[in-house]
Amino acid sequence: MRRLYDFELSGSCYKVRLFLSFLGLDYEKVPVDFVNKEHKTETYLKLNPFGEIPIFEDDDLRLRDAQAILVYLAKRYDTTNSWYPDNAEAMGKISQWLSTGGGEIMNSAGARLVKILNYQMDLPKLQAGAVRAFEILDHHLADREWVELGQPTIGDIACFPYTALAGEGGIDMSKFKNIARWVERMKGLRNFISMPGIG
Amino acid sequence: MRRLYDFELSGSCYKVRLFLSFLGLDYEKVPVDFVNKEHKTETYLKLNPFGEIPIFEDDDLRLRDAQAILVYLAKRYDTTNSWYPDNAEAMGKISQWLSTGGGEIMNSAGARLVKILNYQMDLPKLQAGAVRAFEILDHHLADREWVELGQPTIGDIACFPYTALAGEGGIDMSKFKNIARWVERMKGLRNFISMPGIG
Repeated sequence: MRRLYDFELSGSCYKVRLFLSFLGLDYEKVPVDFVNKEHKTETYLKLNPFGEIPIFEDDDLRLRDAQAILVYLAKRYDTTNSWYPDNAEAMGKISQWLSTGGGEIMNSAGARLVKILNYQMDLPKLQAGAVRAFEILDHHLADREWVELGQPTIGDIACFPYTALAGEGGIDMSKFKNIARWVERMKGLRNFISMPGIG
Repeated sequence: MRRLYDFELSGSCYKVRLFLSFLGLDYEKVPVDFVNKEHKTETYLKLNPFGEIPIFEDDDLRLRDAQAILVYLAKRYDTTNSWYPDNAEAMGKISQWLSTGGGEIMNSAGARLVKILNYQMDLPKLQAGAVRAFEILDHHLADREWVELGQPTIGDIACFPYTALAGEGGIDMSKFKNIARWVERMKGLRNFISMPGIG
């Protein structure tokens, strides 16, 4: 039984929902009341002591961290061996963008939490950190269709949500033309699904 | 030709040096003058636009991000298939700790930069974030010798440096008894090498 502890408006949960859709896998959703901080309750912290969403379960296996879940799903279910190809160079290259998607780009997630859920954090600093990451990503995509390998990988999925949602964090994305084209390319993938805030 | 862009006092570079030692691989070190911000120069940013150390090169391949480099090295050179075993469940579990080592535990790295290089950042916040991560790690290690699989993996390597160096960030580690035992276990591994600040 596959099960996702999910919050519809979370870009991190959306990474997993999106990849499950690309892979054509069904699963059960367990809604987490993120707005009322269910992810910080004792019950939830027993499942993930870091108090973060998503959590993914596959029978007896329980995983936290969106990027770790993408790695697992690719290795376990991607029969095309294209989303995280089984060789050192590809995995190293893609892992860079797993780190970026779970790292620098999360500044955009933070900015969005300030704007839409009134979190008390340093908005200008978060926005500046996000813009710095997007400048690098935009430049990187100037001569590439995808972040690595010339094909969509879990590196793209890890970076996509909080890039596409950056406007909700009050970040002006209009100058990032290469990112805009990459976002459209993502949307054109077979079995792409959207989420609120992504047009 | 293997080449590491390295700063001796960086825990992130040490992750790579340590794993290269475990794997018994030789390589060339290119010293980066981190104190004088060589990693923010135009020349360096051409190699890694994120302006961070380490960078690892293997012939024509160039990788940034310590965790991505660990994944590459394990897949390319670990003939024992034990540091990042080639199966979905193991990779998913270990990837969680790659994220933690490059994420929450980096609060300890930030605190250390404030204390030893006078970086202007929010020290109490960094220390509190690190302590929260160490509380989780310590609890996790209460009934485990290693972070996953009952054997040393790149998950341990990713979490080790800035845990063992936390004292330099002004963090009191004395209550984390399980972490202390895990640190000693790491030090006892064949071909372990140390760095300044790790006794």
